[in-house]
Amino acid sequence: LNTPGSATAIPVSDIGERRLIERIRSRLPPAPPGVVVGIGDDAAVVRATRGALQLLTTDALVEGVHFDRRFSRPSDIGYKALAVNVSDVAAMGAAPGVALLSLILPPQFPIEDLDGLLDGLLEMAGAVRVTLVGGNIARSPGPLIVDVTVAGWVHERKVLRRSGGRPGDALYVSGEIGAAAAGLSWLQANARAPGDLPDDPGLAECVRRHLRPEPRARLGMVMGRNRATSACMDLSDGLADAVRQVAEASGTGAVIDEAALPIHSAAEAWFAAAGEDPVDRSVGGGDDYELLFAVAPRSRGRFRGAARLARGLTLTKIGELTSNPELRMQGAGGVRSLPAGFVHF
Amino acid sequence: LNTPGSATAIPVSDIGERRLIERIRSRLPPAPPGVVVGIGDDAAVVRATRGALQLLTTDALVEGVHFDRRFSRPSDIGYKALAVNVSDVAAMGAAPGVALLSLILPPQFPIEDLDGLLDGLLEMAGAVRVTLVGGNIARSPGPLIVDVTVAGWVHERKVLRRSGGRPGDALYVSGEIGAAAAGLSWLQANARAPGDLPDDPGLAECVRRHLRPEPRARLGMVMGRNRATSACMDLSDGLADAVRQVAEASGTGAVIDEAALPIHSAAEAWFAAAGEDPVDRSVGGGDDYELLFAVAPRSRGRFRGAARLARGLTLTKIGELTSNPELRMQGAGGVRSLPAGFVHF
Repeated sequence: LNTPGSATAIPVSDIGERRLIERIRSRLPPAPPGVVVGIGDDAAVVRATRGALQLLTTDALVEGVHFDRRFSRPSDIGYKALAVNVSDVAAMGAAPGVALLSLILPPQFPIEDLDGLLDGLLEMAGAVRVTLVGGNIARSPGPLIVDVTVAGWVHERKVLRRSGGRPGDALYVSGEIGAAAAGLSWLQANARAPGDLPDDPGLAECVRRHLRPEPRARLGMVMGRNRATSACMDLSDGLADAVRQVAEASGTGAVIDEAALPIHSAAEAWFAAAGEDPVDRSVGGGDDYELLFAVAPRSRGRFRGAARLARGLTLTKIGELTSNPELRMQGAGGVRSLPAGFVHF
Repeated sequence: LNTPGSATAIPVSDIGERRLIERIRSRLPPAPPGVVVGIGDDAAVVRATRGALQLLTTDALVEGVHFDRRFSRPSDIGYKALAVNVSDVAAMGAAPGVALLSLILPPQFPIEDLDGLLDGLLEMAGAVRVTLVGGNIARSPGPLIVDVTVAGWVHERKVLRRSGGRPGDALYVSGEIGAAAAGLSWLQANARAPGDLPDDPGLAECVRRHLRPEPRARLGMVMGRNRATSACMDLSDGLADAVRQVAEASGTGAVIDEAALPIHSAAEAWFAAAGEDPVDRSVGGGDDYELLFAVAPRSRGRFRGAARLARGLTLTKIGELTSNPELRMQGAGGVRSLPAGFVHF
């Protein structure tokens, strides 16, 4: 892959919009039969599934805010731009179906990097069976922006909202937290070029989690299908933010058990070595695309059954929703307020 | 409305993302029953219409490329950002249903301007019965970007593609062309502040067409419903571009009758006074959100019947698709190549 400014790079400004679209279209796998009109017309047309609800989400990655081209290869950016949207769909208990790609390109953005970006996006699309059906390309004097919209489908009674939790519901989180924040921290301190990884395999895994998060697409769908949870949200802005939002939307408070938090071990070591609090950094750091679930007492059996279908992904009980409206964290040092989540503005 | 830098302006960076979303949500009209989950969850959920196809489109307005904050008020930007997407939906013969709003905001963007932007978007939404159901807000060091996605519905046999034209089909265009290009040209030469308009009412109309285009939502739907046309596209990038794209997608050429072109009279006078060719500027200029139709000989009666439902909007025959693959314009001076359309890159 070419990096910006490499000698052979062709800037997108040398190529017309329609040739850019054609270049994108030529790289796509054949569309499934449900796609009636794909890329190249005024809009995409997809067949609606009977009895299912349509689900729509959009999320943008902005250069200098959500990624740094010194660390992220174009394919990483494309991969992540779709992954974060798939994560939102999974957090609703739904199956993703089709995507639109809205590219805002600086004039000197190399055409080879556009190819790489699309390769990464299509790799993610293939993994979760999403079809790219359209989009838009605009030029901009500003940073590279990759704005993706994903449409999915879900049966009406299987939608996982943020707002269904009740006091007494247990809170579970999938996988591990803190890895993406530690990975970004390592990149900022050490990376010299895109693709650089630490020697420590655990820390390298953290870097990969930051660059190429794995949305919990199957887990979200399984939990929705089994109606095993009362509320769900993804951890795009960190665990603390997700707990806060689920509690607020559900009209409850929450208490988190600090000792139970599944902090990634390499992340914990990285933060500790840097003199930072691993708990605060792990619950406050964004970019963990794990899922947070609230589970009612009567649903715990169904939840454990569904969890077994999650293919090796650990689900950890980390606390519960409370009638006390505060957001608290309980640890060895007593009870304190939940740290703030990742702040966009 | 506040302009950037006014004394009382509160930059969005002073306000958290969730308070921004809450501010947007508080301004929305009540959602119709088909919206199951609106703004504020991981994704929006809307009810699928039985027997209908889902249609998706996205289009972004970039500051410094598609609009200039010296000319466009925030409400104009919001209005147009939705209008250009509705135009794409209309060009497919479909009814728009719901929209997602993806905002990329510079940190110093005033909160009052965000309100204005939303007011304009909701004015357009109300006019075409579109419900804003979600979106995303990201900050950016670069220009203001308003990226909108619209989903619509259309019956399968009523989709208006670009590709259905055949040699011998007549080409019709709605309304008048050149107005938006003339309006922009006037603004660039004369405007001192957003809201400035020329004294000449015809030219003022041109400026309004540039700032706040009216998508032909009803016309597109009527033509789709009556299956009166073989191909359709909107004129977002100008008439020449639309003719080129319909011809290419249909595997035909086209010939345009220069004398028949419905050039806006004030635009014609403006370009002539500036020493520019009114025809070239009108067919090459973007931002006319009129519709181009191809109509088969056997469908002309149905087309004229449907046109009567278009409520006073003129439809003008401007040429036809040809088996000769060239794109030609026929005028007093003989036959020449169709001028190029608006170029994004």
